[in-house]
Amino acid sequence: MNKECDYSAAYIIVHTDAGLEGRGMTFTIGRGNEIVCFAINEIAKRIVGMDADEIFADMGAFWNFLVADPQHRWLGPEKGVIHLATAAVSNALWDMFAKARGKPLWKLIVDFTPEEFVKATAFRYITDAITPEEALALLKEKEATKAAREANVIEKGYPAYTTSVGWLGYDDAKVERLTKEALAQGFNHFKLKVGADAADDLRRGLLIRSIIDNPANMPAGREIDPASIAGKNAGPTGCVLMVDANQVWDVPQAVEYMGKLEPLKPWFIEEPTAPDDAVGHAAIRKALKPLNIGVATGEHAHNRMTFKQLLQLDAIDVCQIDSCRVGGVNEILGILLMSAKYGVPVCPHAGGVGLCAMVIHLILIDYIAVSGSMERNVLEWIDHLHENFKYPPSVNAQGRYNVPLEAQCGYSVDFLDEAIAEFTFPEGTYWTTRAAAEAKAAKLNGANGVNGVNGHTNGVAINGVNGANGHANGH
Amino acid sequence: MNKECDYSAAYIIVHTDAGLEGRGMTFTIGRGNEIVCFAINEIAKRIVGMDADEIFADMGAFWNFLVADPQHRWLGPEKGVIHLATAAVSNALWDMFAKARGKPLWKLIVDFTPEEFVKATAFRYITDAITPEEALALLKEKEATKAAREANVIEKGYPAYTTSVGWLGYDDAKVERLTKEALAQGFNHFKLKVGADAADDLRRGLLIRSIIDNPANMPAGREIDPASIAGKNAGPTGCVLMVDANQVWDVPQAVEYMGKLEPLKPWFIEEPTAPDDAVGHAAIRKALKPLNIGVATGEHAHNRMTFKQLLQLDAIDVCQIDSCRVGGVNEILGILLMSAKYGVPVCPHAGGVGLCAMVIHLILIDYIAVSGSMERNVLEWIDHLHENFKYPPSVNAQGRYNVPLEAQCGYSVDFLDEAIAEFTFPEGTYWTTRAAAEAKAAKLNGANGVNGVNGHTNGVAINGVNGANGHANGH
Repeated sequence: MNKECDYSAAYIIVHTDAGLEGRGMTFTIGRGNEIVCFAINEIAKRIVGMDADEIFADMGAFWNFLVADPQHRWLGPEKGVIHLATAAVSNALWDMFAKARGKPLWKLIVDFTPEEFVKATAFRYITDAITPEEALALLKEKEATKAAREANVIEKGYPAYTTSVGWLGYDDAKVERLTKEALAQGFNHFKLKVGADAADDLRRGLLIRSIIDNPANMPAGREIDPASIAGKNAGPTGCVLMVDANQVWDVPQAVEYMGKLEPLKPWFIEEPTAPDDAVGHAAIRKALKPLNIGVATGEHAHNRMTFKQLLQLDAIDVCQIDSCRVGGVNEILGILLMSAKYGVPVCPHAGGVGLCAMVIHLILIDYIAVSGSMERNVLEWIDHLHENFKYPPSVNAQGRYNVPLEAQCGYSVDFLDEAIAEFTFPEGTYWTTRAAAEAKAAKLNGANGVNGVNGHTNGVAINGVNGANGHANGH
Repeated sequence: MNKECDYSAAYIIVHTDAGLEGRGMTFTIGRGNEIVCFAINEIAKRIVGMDADEIFADMGAFWNFLVADPQHRWLGPEKGVIHLATAAVSNALWDMFAKARGKPLWKLIVDFTPEEFVKATAFRYITDAITPEEALALLKEKEATKAAREANVIEKGYPAYTTSVGWLGYDDAKVERLTKEALAQGFNHFKLKVGADAADDLRRGLLIRSIIDNPANMPAGREIDPASIAGKNAGPTGCVLMVDANQVWDVPQAVEYMGKLEPLKPWFIEEPTAPDDAVGHAAIRKALKPLNIGVATGEHAHNRMTFKQLLQLDAIDVCQIDSCRVGGVNEILGILLMSAKYGVPVCPHAGGVGLCAMVIHLILIDYIAVSGSMERNVLEWIDHLHENFKYPPSVNAQGRYNVPLEAQCGYSVDFLDEAIAEFTFPEGTYWTTRAAAEAKAAKLNGANGVNGVNGHTNGVAINGVNGANGHANGH
């Protein structure tokens, strides 16, 4: 489904007259990145001239302001391009807020009082699932033990899984090599892309299972907490397989196809059908329950109302938030609170460009302040494009994310200056060099398959957020 | 919710080398129109150079092509800006197709065989609600009687309702005058905007009820078919009141607020909460059933999957399609088929700019070829901005839409050349004049409240759809 990936980011840098800087981004896969940049500029016009300290004093009110523009709402509301752009702008202010306080974003938020947390949360349209009062009670219950969890995760890292072994198109030798490498890196959760051909999926999946279920392939001294894999269809060595269809099926097709993949004993099928279809996901989950296969979705669930329905209809075993798809941190807080109330573990979507760096912040908030648990959760890990970031994410020797601790990392979306100079579209050196080389071929810029090569980063700069004479510059 | 309306259209004109022309549009309410234009240009790049006759031979395949771009899908999929833009492009090709055959759009489609109709329908992701085979059976059942219904609606017109009487902000004298005028025009369905203040809504609604329930105010010789108002909470004179909240409430608020409006005896509450929330609409409908108040929604339901869930969860009494919100005619056909199967009447959203002109085509398709019934349905009518169109919609003396019959009307979205010259943004005379007048005020173009004045029409022209050397021009 997501073929021709040309990993890209619509990127905004916000400045204040006092010298503060905040950065935010939305991830895209190529064509269309410029549409999001265009929308970011339109939204950002509304914040130029505002006072940053007043924004920080009530981030909930700021988010309400961002999504309340009636004319922009018509283009959504709260979905698609306008919401992706809202996410970038909102995330830039959260990044600025964290940097202003000298804390990583996760730490800024876990240090909130329960009242401050609730005030920052987007509750509109989800109060039939969770009220601010319920949220407050839930957060207060976790408050006394926050410090212990913070220390625990800093020491151990946050559990991760790898998607790198099972992309469509990898030959069997490559799948085998990557799976063994991932085992050696400490991973025990593996994800396989499926949906193109059931027989081929079965063969590739059984190949992975044969490797991860073989005790001879386990790293020496490995210990797996049984509680961390309970109910996940784990094999004899404690390894877990997940499969991901990226929305290729209708509901009846999903049920039929997954019946064929039962021998793989997957924990869940991810994105079996259209991401908007909570009713469809509920039907698939119900049909697959006798096969002990769960359902996961969320990377394309476009706002908190979609997550609300997935939870209300018992449609998912795992909630896969994304840092850029919904409208930023405020909306994520609402989704974390709902998931905790409904008892559904959050396992964020990552990969692409910048997502791993961002979601570790979000899941730390979940563990330390909201759900209070992490050992059954797993955070997606793809070791790709991190070299372009100032504060790159990393995993430890046990295959767990390290906790970002740098005082000025903010939301960890600072691209290196060199990356911006190279990849900004269309004036970056990558693009100008490429354009020269391709001049004869008369192809559109960035139109086809730069899969695996660094995609383009569009930058928009907003100057003078604190100043009355500010103006929006797009470049 | 939809304050500061600056009625606008993102407009595309597609040409072939052979001289065919097709026009398509998406309606917006102001700021953000340019974002949609930008997206239209991106999508339209993909069709330049295609063969129009090959497109017409399989409009279903063309629609699948439009929504299948993987990089554009990332920005939706099938929602928000990218889907609004898809609607404009798709509708332009339908307009061209109809004009090429010398038929109004509705006539082009009702003349399809059931097989051709099914082939043109977007079924992906909705086959758990209706399969192509079920759709075929449904259409075949209606086929023999199509001609009789066509003759009937051409003679009588299609039932309509008016929203002009009850906008928020109208004073009581104006509401009274407009209600009496609407009665004299033949209307017996009236819609009131609510949600700002319950006491005020109650007063305004009871004022309307006192007028429409008073036999002395009825036009001489009026006859109302009892079947047309059955189950609609009609008053003693056969008049029906509907209320519309434009998404202002959370689910519990909607139930509480509508309890207060029970004395108005509305047929339905329209858009009580977030348009994505099928589960929420179902909860509201269930709670309001004892009060005999129904639920309607759809103008912001962003694709067929949203409508599918609304129908599957018994969440709506009335299905309000919009001609520009979902991805054009192909997707509408799928929604009409689902609504017919689930027995929910379709009452399209109209108003804005161009919507009345377009939706009459869609509802004629529903009546003649799909549901086979119209007497309980009502089509929204707002007599506003029609003077800008070459084939303006109209109502007859019985307050019913006339059927568009001009051979070259296509989808009825041709703006007059004068309107394009005046309102194209930013170079139209309306804008240049206004810009000169406002130069001192340093305001953004089109940023604030031109409500009631003609909004801006952005034009994009795509040349050479048939030619191999075509290119996209945006202006």
